Amino acid sequence: MRKYLTEFIGTFFLVFTVAMAAVAGHAGDFAGLAIGGVLMVMIFAGGHISGGHYNPAVSMAVYRRGGLAGREMINYWVAQLLGGAVAAALASQLFGVAAAAPMQLQRAQALTAEFLFTFALAYVVVLVATAKATQGNSFYGLAIGFTVVAGAYAVGKVSGGAFNPAVAGGIGILGVLGWADVVGYWVVQLVAGAGAGHLFRYLHPRE
Amino acid sequence: MRKYLTEFIGTFFLVFTVAMAAVAGHAGDFAGLAIGGVLMVMIFAGGHISGGHYNPAVSMAVYRRGGLAGREMINYWVAQLLGGAVAAALASQLFGVAAAAPMQLQRAQALTAEFLFTFALAYVVVLVATAKATQGNSFYGLAIGFTVVAGAYAVGKVSGGAFNPAVAGGIGILGVLGWADVVGYWVVQLVAGAGAGHLFRYLHPRE
Amino acid sequence: MRKYLTEFIGTFFLVFTVAMAAVAGHAGDFAGLAIGGVLMVMIFAGGHISGGHYNPAVSMAVYRRGGLAGREMINYWVAQLLGGAVAAALASQLFGVAAAAPMQLQRAQALTAEFLFTFALAYVVVLVATAKATQGNSFYGLAIGFTVVAGAYAVGKVSGGAFNPAVAGGIGILGVLGWADVVGYWVVQLVAGAGAGHLFRYLHPRE
Amino acid sequence: MRKYLTEFIGTFFLVFTVAMAAVAGHAGDFAGLAIGGVLMVMIFAGGHISGGHYNPAVSMAVYRRGGLAGREMINYWVAQLLGGAVAAALASQLFGVAAAAPMQLQRAQALTAEFLFTFALAYVVVLVATAKATQGNSFYGLAIGFTVVAGAYAVGKVSGGAFNPAVAGGIGILGVLGWADVVGYWVVQLVAGAGAGHLFRYLHPRE
Repeated sequence: MRKYLTEFIGTFFLVFTVAMAAVAGHAGDFAGLAIGGVLMVMIFAGGHISGGHYNPAVSMAVYRRGGLAGREMINYWVAQLLGGAVAAALASQLFGVAAAAPMQLQRAQALTAEFLFTFALAYVVVLVATAKATQGNSFYGLAIGFTVVAGAYAVGKVSGGAFNPAVAGGIGILGVLGWADVVGYWVVQLVAGAGAGHLFRYLHPRE
Repeated sequence: MRKYLTEFIGTFFLVFTVAMAAVAGHAGDFAGLAIGGVLMVMIFAGGHISGGHYNPAVSMAVYRRGGLAGREMINYWVAQLLGGAVAAALASQLFGVAAAAPMQLQRAQALTAEFLFTFALAYVVVLVATAKATQGNSFYGLAIGFTVVAGAYAVGKVSGGAFNPAVAGGIGILGVLGWADVVGYWVVQLVAGAGAGHLFRYLHPRE
Repeated sequence: MRKYLTEFIGTFFLVFTVAMAAVAGHAGDFAGLAIGGVLMVMIFAGGHISGGHYNPAVSMAVYRRGGLAGREMINYWVAQLLGGAVAAALASQLFGVAAAAPMQLQRAQALTAEFLFTFALAYVVVLVATAKATQGNSFYGLAIGFTVVAGAYAVGKVSGGAFNPAVAGGIGILGVLGWADVVGYWVVQLVAGAGAGHLFRYLHPRE
Repeated sequence: MRKYLTEFIGTFFLVFTVAMAAVAGHAGDFAGLAIGGVLMVMIFAGGHISGGHYNPAVSMAVYRRGGLAGREMINYWVAQLLGGAVAAALASQLFGVAAAAPMQLQRAQALTAEFLFTFALAYVVVLVATAKATQGNSFYGLAIGFTVVAGAYAVGKVSGGAFNPAVAGGIGILGVLGWADVVGYWVVQLVAGAGAGHLFRYLHPRE
């Protein structure tokens, strides 16, 4: 339960920050820094308890890399999606956060952007947080958080910059994405995570 | 005395930066980065002397987690509140900093926002700076400082983004908050800090 | 092959971020942070596999410092230039990224700016990532990435802020620079990298 | 000579970035991040050779703390002031950087602001880079660089945000400050550095 509570808390603050900083627009152009920043601090805080995923696509990558049991992954997913949903509900009900209208996506561009940066995120996670060669480092949260910072500024205007099924679900609740788009993001993000997990094995033949 | 002097200096620079960057508006939209940044550097500098709290709610969390005696906590509070008050007085008297008018708060939103991010801040502090599993890391200041960066951009426009009774007191002196609101913030922030301290115990049953 | 694949991936994401954040303008004034940020995360992720150069001028510096064989350097160059070209092609074909018109360079200023910050970048790399005295540190990616952040904000408007032949080639494909300028940049950048590699030897007589 | 060359290079890039990002205005509101960023990277790069001061007031603090001989300090000052002067001359002659008019300072405010943040900077340096308790950490450059980031956004509009005699001299050459103000800054900055060095001794009675 300690692991799931940690995943719930971290994903809650991640999606709550997305809701307030980006969807409600309080952070203006600093939303990307705020969102990557809160992910970074939650990873540094909870990494030693749950691994600090806060993202079903990352849990998929760790599962494929061989660092998480399949059944455990499902539990992580539940905690993450729940954390994101509670954050979105709180932002919506108490703070009145809602998208004026769903984003009009160029679908091929949006799905490619989500694939690329979800892959980058999962690739960075498995390399900095699960490889033997980088064990004991003090930069894992910084590296993972700033992957989201870079992705948000690079393709945020193309896809919304979710890179995370729990975030996609959260902004779906807030009306930023239609549910068909949310489901499309989920598929693409999980595939990207799985790919990063497999690539890890190729890059580290001895682990 | 070394500990209290360190707490005084760190809180002084934190609140002075709040006054100049945010209240006087010199930093524009970069105020959140400046404030989280100065907290980060003061923690890295003074952490080995006093623990680098600079925040009564953080001292409360460390006390509840079992890392600070109750009497010591009161001394910390005095040093922190004094550092913040001196900074606000200097900003006001020499630099002419003053709020045009108190913020008009949506009280339920503001108190919830202060609760959530003060909790996040204290949660990050006890996990990155007092847990055995993260001992010797080089990221504690970065994690704690960027919790304030993220919170400032997420809810700064809702609550002022204090997350710290010494900051709340300082911006009370500068007229950003009325004193009834300052006292309300103090209560909510200390409760959030205490909650984070208790949660630490649940998450680390062997410490 | 593992090394070259890692160099390909890192340079791909670097140049793709340049294309989307800076050339397409999605990041506005945050482009420098996004570009330095993605370089940082790719270095933290892939450093233990390939050294995390993602930049032919950096590979030149490491070669001159004595940390890479000449033939290996050529392989790195191919992987890096290919990664950058594929990123530029994808940005151009799928996302429609293109410069409205090539930059009008003040040539002496632009070449000097590229020389200075490519030198700074290669100097920082060899000192933080290949010196015995800094071995095992957790800051190498942060130091290297923020050299690009600083350079982008200091001279980005003068030269485009490439500091990297793979980036110069990528923005050449996108029409930001004419090909004569790209070739001029390549020469100046490789000379700067070689100079930094030689300086390393002078600064570390015992290595 | 290796130490002085390292100090020259680091101070050159620091003042060149000040000239291009802030005085020429290329970085807009990001100037503070660029300047603190370049200081950070030069400290991470050259710290193991010269200590990475790049600032006569910091050398004064290290001298007073007992980590640098008096004669050595003078050599450091020469290298630092020369690096800053060469950077300002290059920015002025090749890039045409010049202040439209000197800043109109509120003298008491400007000198207090320079005193406070030069003290903060020197205090952070001696604590994170020369104390036994923080030896071997990977955050020293981050802590020192972000002290300048925070100070630039907090009081940059009040004093210009030099916090460093070599920067004050450099922006004097560029016409941002009159020479009487530069000399006033030098005095205040060196006193602040000396004070931080003495405070270190009080805070660490056993070193």
